[in-house]
Amino acid sequence: MLTVTSPVASEVAVSVAELVSRHQRTLDDALAAIRTRAYYSAYPESPSPRVYGESAAAQGLAAYQAWLGSDFPIDTPGAAGLVATERSPYGPELAVRYPRVQPDQAALDALLGAAQEAMPAWREAGPAARAAVCLEILARLHARIFELANAVQHTSGQAFVMAFQAGGAHALDRALEAVAYAHEEQARTPATATWEKPAGKGEPLRMAKTFHVVPRGVALVIGCNTFPTWNSWPGLFASLATGNAVVVKPHPRAVLPLAITVHVAREVLAEQGFDPDLVTLAAEDPDGRIAAALAVRPEVRIVDYTGSSEFGRWLEDNARQAVVFTEKSGVNTVVVDSTDDFAGMCRNLAFSLSLYTGQMCTAPQNIYVPREGIATDKGHKSFAEVGEGLAAAVDALLGDDARAVELLGAVVNPGVLERLNAAPDAGRVVLASRTIEHPAWPDATVRTPTIIALDSSDSAIYTTECFGPVSYLIATDSTEASLDLFRDTVRAQGAMTAAVYSADEKVVDAAEQAAIEAGVALSVNLTRGVFVNQSAAFSDFHGTGANPAANAAFTDGAYVAGRFRIVQSRRHVAPGLNA
Amino acid sequence: MLTVTSPVASEVAVSVAELVSRHQRTLDDALAAIRTRAYYSAYPESPSPRVYGESAAAQGLAAYQAWLGSDFPIDTPGAAGLVATERSPYGPELAVRYPRVQPDQAALDALLGAAQEAMPAWREAGPAARAAVCLEILARLHARIFELANAVQHTSGQAFVMAFQAGGAHALDRALEAVAYAHEEQARTPATATWEKPAGKGEPLRMAKTFHVVPRGVALVIGCNTFPTWNSWPGLFASLATGNAVVVKPHPRAVLPLAITVHVAREVLAEQGFDPDLVTLAAEDPDGRIAAALAVRPEVRIVDYTGSSEFGRWLEDNARQAVVFTEKSGVNTVVVDSTDDFAGMCRNLAFSLSLYTGQMCTAPQNIYVPREGIATDKGHKSFAEVGEGLAAAVDALLGDDARAVELLGAVVNPGVLERLNAAPDAGRVVLASRTIEHPAWPDATVRTPTIIALDSSDSAIYTTECFGPVSYLIATDSTEASLDLFRDTVRAQGAMTAAVYSADEKVVDAAEQAAIEAGVALSVNLTRGVFVNQSAAFSDFHGTGANPAANAAFTDGAYVAGRFRIVQSRRHVAPGLNA
Repeated sequence: MLTVTSPVASEVAVSVAELVSRHQRTLDDALAAIRTRAYYSAYPESPSPRVYGESAAAQGLAAYQAWLGSDFPIDTPGAAGLVATERSPYGPELAVRYPRVQPDQAALDALLGAAQEAMPAWREAGPAARAAVCLEILARLHARIFELANAVQHTSGQAFVMAFQAGGAHALDRALEAVAYAHEEQARTPATATWEKPAGKGEPLRMAKTFHVVPRGVALVIGCNTFPTWNSWPGLFASLATGNAVVVKPHPRAVLPLAITVHVAREVLAEQGFDPDLVTLAAEDPDGRIAAALAVRPEVRIVDYTGSSEFGRWLEDNARQAVVFTEKSGVNTVVVDSTDDFAGMCRNLAFSLSLYTGQMCTAPQNIYVPREGIATDKGHKSFAEVGEGLAAAVDALLGDDARAVELLGAVVNPGVLERLNAAPDAGRVVLASRTIEHPAWPDATVRTPTIIALDSSDSAIYTTECFGPVSYLIATDSTEASLDLFRDTVRAQGAMTAAVYSADEKVVDAAEQAAIEAGVALSVNLTRGVFVNQSAAFSDFHGTGANPAANAAFTDGAYVAGRFRIVQSRRHVAPGLNA
Repeated sequence: MLTVTSPVASEVAVSVAELVSRHQRTLDDALAAIRTRAYYSAYPESPSPRVYGESAAAQGLAAYQAWLGSDFPIDTPGAAGLVATERSPYGPELAVRYPRVQPDQAALDALLGAAQEAMPAWREAGPAARAAVCLEILARLHARIFELANAVQHTSGQAFVMAFQAGGAHALDRALEAVAYAHEEQARTPATATWEKPAGKGEPLRMAKTFHVVPRGVALVIGCNTFPTWNSWPGLFASLATGNAVVVKPHPRAVLPLAITVHVAREVLAEQGFDPDLVTLAAEDPDGRIAAALAVRPEVRIVDYTGSSEFGRWLEDNARQAVVFTEKSGVNTVVVDSTDDFAGMCRNLAFSLSLYTGQMCTAPQNIYVPREGIATDKGHKSFAEVGEGLAAAVDALLGDDARAVELLGAVVNPGVLERLNAAPDAGRVVLASRTIEHPAWPDATVRTPTIIALDSSDSAIYTTECFGPVSYLIATDSTEASLDLFRDTVRAQGAMTAAVYSADEKVVDAAEQAAIEAGVALSVNLTRGVFVNQSAAFSDFHGTGANPAANAAFTDGAYVAGRFRIVQSRRHVAPGLNA
């Protein structure tokens, strides 16, 4: 166990052994949670002063604001000059300047060379020390959760509370979950073993064996615009916990949350005597192509990516020297057959369509409803009445502008706006989008979701992803036809989520069978405070890896097992013989 | 749990539940073994009548002989006509005729369609039932171990005892190990969970969750000529235990051991009410290209392959819809620095060079020795004296022809013979190969190994694999230079094994560091009854997946985790509410 303390520690330095002890309880609780998949959270999701203290919110905001217009204090090997690329979806330029990495060979040589040099001591430290250091990094990030929430809000456009939860507490939980899986996977093989094979009447054959956990190599994490922390931290911490160095390549519009992350990781690593270049930040010009250049370098052996299907497929096809974990786009589906709670169904779906302006990889897009209508607790509802019910629920949810913006957040980029503006041409407008003036941020782009009615024959429209606040209410021949469409579309296009509403258990069973065949997780009859676009760390898997939307799940054994290898040695043991 | 019994059962049919109970102890022991990596074996490796009974050997031989010249009784969907492709390396044609699969679309549609149709009921059966059925198949194969040993002997050319051990008992142990890892991996996620999230003073949010193990798809196992069972069974049983259907494509020269395997698997599956097309045999004409045609079909989602690097790389590059596990060629290395037991070292290496005529993927090829010689318990030995010591040990081991053939077996194919005949041109002959007349099989091709002395400057020769009984004794500038060559060659060319001999713990440590950096398992100072080319199931990993020789290890978490996915469903639970 290392006991090196850092000469640059800003607080009282503690040994790695002390860190192991400090975080053992959290790690044990996380390990228990991944075995039961029951409820667990290590980081409170409420930003209330009763939980975090009276001054936490103001201090976090001040810390965020202090970054604006500044040179971010981080060293990136190979970087040349500075780059500032962030503008808040709420309006202001962030104007934070980061070391710029360009895709030339000398820069990549320096960056990846530094990452490689940092690895041997980290590998030697072993799984327990690495888990403890990772948990210390998470604890420090947690201490800065309000600062991070502001950074996530002003890069993704999420509303503050969502940024605090999805970008802060829930992201920390997912990262902890990844560390737990990584630790358990490494611990499955003992560090040493004695092998003693009976040899009849003779002395048994005895061998002493040592099993080393050996990291795969340098890991590349490619961040996305909408969930800079939540979607990047699991891969980052899974790779780091298994001994790899990690290069973090943020989306140019969402650098700050990951710059803070890398800053904290480097600080903790240095304090513990490890090389801070185990975690580096590779910021770039917009369209800098640094991700593509890094991804095919021989030193890079792991790639974690969230983003467009186009670049995801490019990575899978070209980063052949690496294991590539991708989360791409998909067509999330809701099959509506019948319901015992029409109002609850509409309220629940309205929330899912509205949250963060539908800019979640898990937000529903296709809602299949039989053209003859459905049975409900309020009597038969025609196809049109289902649309009216949904539209009314969205209106009720978003009727008050001041409250609405806290759910919607802001439109993250112009592409979303273009798709939203084009949506009415696709079919009959069931619910029109409207523009909301943000009471605090006059330059914010805020829109409510639109719902477009289509027929099942309009498959050219609804079988491709329309990322953003556009959903399709699709008239089908029957629930059976809906399920067939659901299965076939997800198999072909992928999906991160699916839902079914039915008061008939036989239909629910058929939907579950279709979900198994399509390889997508299914939410059944959600009418209360759980939503199809939310997945809970430690319990829900995010994605399945079984359909084209993602080749991995956050977080399971397959997500961590390939990030390291076991290299063993063995020798005879016997008294007096080659001991 | 299924309790279907088969209408075609040839013995008293038992339920799956009874199979689970029958094999629970074996599974539990195997699960314990993979956690400790200590010694364990479920299948005795000694062919002695005291272990297997007086009549077992004769009955097994008779059962093998009964296949010769016959139509093998197995149905393969899509097959057309019969094909016989096997000639024993000991001389005789086997003349067993198997259903022939040709790489035309109709044939593959039929074969893969049948495999897909068989999967849903197998998936529904669940991990425990699948493990029990797999263990019953292994028990039936174990009951036929003498028959299998003869089939392995006369397809691979292994001597009988080796065929019994490596092709029988040890292969069964590796298969059981794969079933154990597969079972543990599936069991890490519970089948159901209740999630209860506190909600302040209100009722907690409660969700019931179901987690389905969903197989990836059809698995393709591509067998090799030298180890038809040992190298194929781990992938076959790992895929089957995780719910996939498996198409077994044997090497045209080594069909019978896998035909018996598939026959037994189909028999057990049918008895338990499962579709026998879960395991099918795809025999082909020599050069039938059926493996390449199957590997790129969209239905095929897993490929397990052992064989040449060329086709292995082709699979990795082209079977992009599948996860591909490959074991290819490499350059296995021994670094000789010094020894406390010169005679033991020479004896041990001589055995490793001779066993199965060096036709093991784990046999040493490059032996690095400082050109100034080495320190030993018998005083300083010059480079030439090390070669003489090794040559004398091989001669002593193989001096008696009748005993020699029981170690050497027969040359498996003409390519090995060509390389052996060309070897003397590469350098100075330290030990010449000689031809041995097999006392029982006059048409067998039996050769002793050759050792060729090279200089470290001859890298054009020794950095490529020369599969077969050719090893190179390579003079280096120093042990440090040997370790550098070792590290660089394995990184570039791969290796399945490595060994070091040194009486200096500092050198052993440096070798272990080099092995970690190269990503290859290391055997240290082997002088007794354990050999570098042997790996023990449940304790030694076979390969690391960390160098170009193989992208996976038999058997670990990474070997099984990607063979299935988890698909979950969730719904509210609350008294009276959408229960």
